[in-house]
Amino acid sequence: MSLPFLSVVLVAPRNPLNIGAAARAMKNFGCEDLRLVDAYEVAFREARSAVGASSVLQSAREYRDVAAAVADSTLVIGTTSLGNRQMNHPLLRLDQTATLVTQHAGRVALLFGSEKFGLSVADMSHCHWLLRIPTIDQDLSMNLGQAVAVCLYEFARDPKAAAAPLLIRRAAADSAQTEQIAARLLEIMRITGYTNPTVETSTENKTRRMVRRFALTAADARVCLGVLRQTLWKLRQKAE
Amino acid sequence: MSLPFLSVVLVAPRNPLNIGAAARAMKNFGCEDLRLVDAYEVAFREARSAVGASSVLQSAREYRDVAAAVADSTLVIGTTSLGNRQMNHPLLRLDQTATLVTQHAGRVALLFGSEKFGLSVADMSHCHWLLRIPTIDQDLSMNLGQAVAVCLYEFARDPKAAAAPLLIRRAAADSAQTEQIAARLLEIMRITGYTNPTVETSTENKTRRMVRRFALTAADARVCLGVLRQTLWKLRQKAE
Repeated sequence: MSLPFLSVVLVAPRNPLNIGAAARAMKNFGCEDLRLVDAYEVAFREARSAVGASSVLQSAREYRDVAAAVADSTLVIGTTSLGNRQMNHPLLRLDQTATLVTQHAGRVALLFGSEKFGLSVADMSHCHWLLRIPTIDQDLSMNLGQAVAVCLYEFARDPKAAAAPLLIRRAAADSAQTEQIAARLLEIMRITGYTNPTVETSTENKTRRMVRRFALTAADARVCLGVLRQTLWKLRQKAE
Repeated sequence: MSLPFLSVVLVAPRNPLNIGAAARAMKNFGCEDLRLVDAYEVAFREARSAVGASSVLQSAREYRDVAAAVADSTLVIGTTSLGNRQMNHPLLRLDQTATLVTQHAGRVALLFGSEKFGLSVADMSHCHWLLRIPTIDQDLSMNLGQAVAVCLYEFARDPKAAAAPLLIRRAAADSAQTEQIAARLLEIMRITGYTNPTVETSTENKTRRMVRRFALTAADARVCLGVLRQTLWKLRQKAE
């Protein structure tokens, strides 16, 4: 899913590498609208002229203040690493916000503060609510580019993505193959003296279950059968 | 949630900034076990000696090959940006993998290839399956630090995190306050001649609904009431 309704607003960014990293993350997740407020002029120029600067960076716009940058947005969200500040806004964890953001009717602006200080109280006063990435240590803020990437990933991910059962798309071995593998394995176990004759039935069942746990593909089963056949042939030759 | 069961394995990383960024993302999400395979010596040294290098970086271990780096892991996952390569492994989208990873009984190794080439076919042969971050453009690979951050975020996020109804934790205005606001607003509309007397009832209802949509807090309601009272006072003074 791309994110055409979303604007990323960097407030007072200082490091050109971070501006470039934010733009790259945006490109990755199909978000094209980058806005800068009070960007350190040199940083912006450097980021823009960097080799491989993306279209996102090329078309980024500068605004004189937060109010101007979010004027066309109907939902404004501030990001925060919380720290010890007194919050005057509702604060949501990123993993709770996807529906609020992706189903919002209108433009959404997502604000990131400067690398050192985050968003100011004045910046936050333009926000409807604040968002926190659920990191372990609230005192260790995230790298700006990584924070942008993680937020956009959350909005772009499929909320209905089920825990995938690990689908092996290739044809699975059928029971005949599986059984043949177990049989040859047991034969090898007998010839080599691995099997204790008094518990032979128990060994048979254990082996049969083990081979099924391998969840072999049809192609893998053919390889296994070949190896086992060759091994048996050699073992019988030796036994003669 | 921290990720003590997870090892991040960087295969042939070349850029010290990327190694540092990966380590920082790990620190953010409580994953402490960084492993390097065939790291460019200078890059590793530089990353380690960088100002603010984290404990993750300090305790990172080097391995001679992928086999050694994942020897103690019972689930090995390779990351890929897919591209045009022929895949010989099951491939899952990151947003489908959290349960498989977090509920795995044993150590999980997550492999990231070099910035330029990704994981080799030989590297991938150590993997149980591959994982792809659902970006828009499969040809534009993700920045290494950002890819690590996004993966760890997915594993650390709360899979049951419901779409949060936007809880305002502060006391909401009660209906008496809301009604008083609507009443004063209507009074102002009448005095200023805003209201058309023929549709006055309709205006009343619209205004009442509008004030409720504001979802005011009790404190905000008091401010609004004060402003409205003062406005009314001034308006009536003028009218005299």
